Amino acid sequence: MASMIFTDCSSSSTTATRFLPLSRHRVRDGLLHSRCSTPLRFAPTSPGLLRTIAATSRTYASPSVLTVAMAADTSAKIIDGKSVAKKIRDEITAEISRMKDAIGVVPGLAVILVGDRKDSATYVRNKKKACESVGINSYEVRLPEDSSDQEVLEYISGFNDDPAVHGILVQLPLPSHMNEQNILNAVCIEKDVDGFHPLNIGRLAMRGRDPLFVPCTPKGCIELLHRYGVNIKGKKAVVIGRSNIVGMPAALLLQREDATISIVHSRTKNPEEITRQADIIISAVGKPNMVRGNWIKPGAVVIDVGINPVEDAKSARGYRLVGDVCYEEACKIASAITPVPGGVGPMTIAMLLSNTLSSAKRLHNFK
Amino acid sequence: MASMIFTDCSSSSTTATRFLPLSRHRVRDGLLHSRCSTPLRFAPTSPGLLRTIAATSRTYASPSVLTVAMAADTSAKIIDGKSVAKKIRDEITAEISRMKDAIGVVPGLAVILVGDRKDSATYVRNKKKACESVGINSYEVRLPEDSSDQEVLEYISGFNDDPAVHGILVQLPLPSHMNEQNILNAVCIEKDVDGFHPLNIGRLAMRGRDPLFVPCTPKGCIELLHRYGVNIKGKKAVVIGRSNIVGMPAALLLQREDATISIVHSRTKNPEEITRQADIIISAVGKPNMVRGNWIKPGAVVIDVGINPVEDAKSARGYRLVGDVCYEEACKIASAITPVPGGVGPMTIAMLLSNTLSSAKRLHNFK
Repeated sequence: MASMIFTDCSSSSTTATRFLPLSRHRVRDGLLHSRCSTPLRFAPTSPGLLRTIAATSRTYASPSVLTVAMAADTSAKIIDGKSVAKKIRDEITAEISRMKDAIGVVPGLAVILVGDRKDSATYVRNKKKACESVGINSYEVRLPEDSSDQEVLEYISGFNDDPAVHGILVQLPLPSHMNEQNILNAVCIEKDVDGFHPLNIGRLAMRGRDPLFVPCTPKGCIELLHRYGVNIKGKKAVVIGRSNIVGMPAALLLQREDATISIVHSRTKNPEEITRQADIIISAVGKPNMVRGNWIKPGAVVIDVGINPVEDAKSARGYRLVGDVCYEEACKIASAITPVPGGVGPMTIAMLLSNTLSSAKRLHNFK
Repeated sequence: MASMIFTDCSSSSTTATRFLPLSRHRVRDGLLHSRCSTPLRFAPTSPGLLRTIAATSRTYASPSVLTVAMAADTSAKIIDGKSVAKKIRDEITAEISRMKDAIGVVPGLAVILVGDRKDSATYVRNKKKACESVGINSYEVRLPEDSSDQEVLEYISGFNDDPAVHGILVQLPLPSHMNEQNILNAVCIEKDVDGFHPLNIGRLAMRGRDPLFVPCTPKGCIELLHRYGVNIKGKKAVVIGRSNIVGMPAALLLQREDATISIVHSRTKNPEEITRQADIIISAVGKPNMVRGNWIKPGAVVIDVGINPVEDAKSARGYRLVGDVCYEEACKIASAITPVPGGVGPMTIAMLLSNTLSSAKRLHNFK
């Protein structure tokens, strides 16, 4: 399996992947050709889907139109991350207002950006906008590409000591001359809103302990399951991918909720034999359309974390985004599924805001 | 599933379980009655086993005799933890001698025992003897039952600062008036030879990070697999039990070695469906004979961490020890299996000695 591909899992995204060679995934000859091992042929029993594909073939509808059209013709409930994230941001806004009125404190998030990567600049800008939208103060430091580790460490130290700052993000990737691990370790544990510190991960793994922060993307996955009333306790859950930022913490979170977990990864033989047993699948590997319909048990709930660019000559950008899961097949088999985009993606930043608020509440002992 | 039952998983054992009400498990009417759901009836195709049972019935052979007798008539290779542990202790002895000759340093292990529990005193005495046998200096502090947290913390602080001490154990359980978590957290991470600190567990869970210490019992399980040439990479491994001290870290260790892991626990429905798929089973739940023969895939490797006392009127102690796995059935199906006792048990203390040596080597930068 390839390394994780996301647009931005909070600060530690593998952002370069947007610029990886694109996968082929286009409509031709009335068939949907994808990176799936065979072209998808739809039986006449799926007239709705055929209509959708035909429409796509003619008009090259945007992914969101495609999603809606399919939802109308399939049994899978669409887990709408966009609207859940909006609701959570509204809740955060209200809570911040309550805290400000009660104790005069406004949460603050500091973001440190080193270098000139356009994608990183975009992510930082999006975070800043998201902070503004809910009433979190954002503090941004931009340093030139050739900055020293020491300069970054000094800013981190300043934010660690600043009572107006409750969360600190170092936007990744850092320039290659920097010692990323040393720099990340310098963020004090009480402000590590990404939740990637080994101490947080250890607490997440241990029964009877609680992490200060849960990493944003896996937290978003579980939040979606909760908000859609998906029962986790006692269910079989399979996580595809074992990255530090999504797969591994997602598995630990599911286990904390009493799921029976299995973790599938690049060394797993016949992964589909394992996924087919799952009541809940969380996929986070960064392989477009890897999870086929026949990998999924009828009625399973599918959370697709992958956001993979595939070539699309008809898109103004030259590509479009698809998940790890072959949506067209999965939505006919799963009972509920997240679309890509509009599923897990919007949840990540909502969880970052949530972690920042939690941090401020904890540091000011506000209930 | 019941809570974990072991004699002593380094310092953090649930030692009280030795004194739990004993399970019934005795030979009567030519049948082996156990806590398994049905009495075990042996088909005539297992004459060797029948002979063994008959012998047991007549003479009440000791568990070790029973084990050897069975091994001769079954296909499962006996994973002999006792002899592996002996070999490891010999290796440690040689390494300590090499270090002493080269830099004049002898590893030191400090053990703090609070209160008068006889079982705890026995474990501490065994650790002391094991240290002596390999050339590790042991430092023991015995405090009365009514000691304050502060007194214990002062000893820990002293050992933290003492360059002759490379590992610190606080024997558990502590008296109920003490704050166990606070006390354990006071042991500095560089001397936490139990490896239970959340920072160590976090590093164990994360790819690209390495823990300073791996918890002794799960480390012993993996060491047995290595020493018996069991291939882990790409294999399906099921861990039964998710405790902080065995199940969870065992699963993390197996995943680090590229196994595809599933974790079965008290909330798992039909656990046998999952275990039957495993190439490797590690059971650590503390339920005598829970894992029956039909839970095991033919040819699987079985590591039985459970050490459960079951009533045995013919034993001088009134009980004998059995594992989580119904050995009589499992040894006919597995390709290799650890006996109880004499399997994982002896490995725990060997790994404690190994961790203490590693700590001394690291603190003195000795390769």
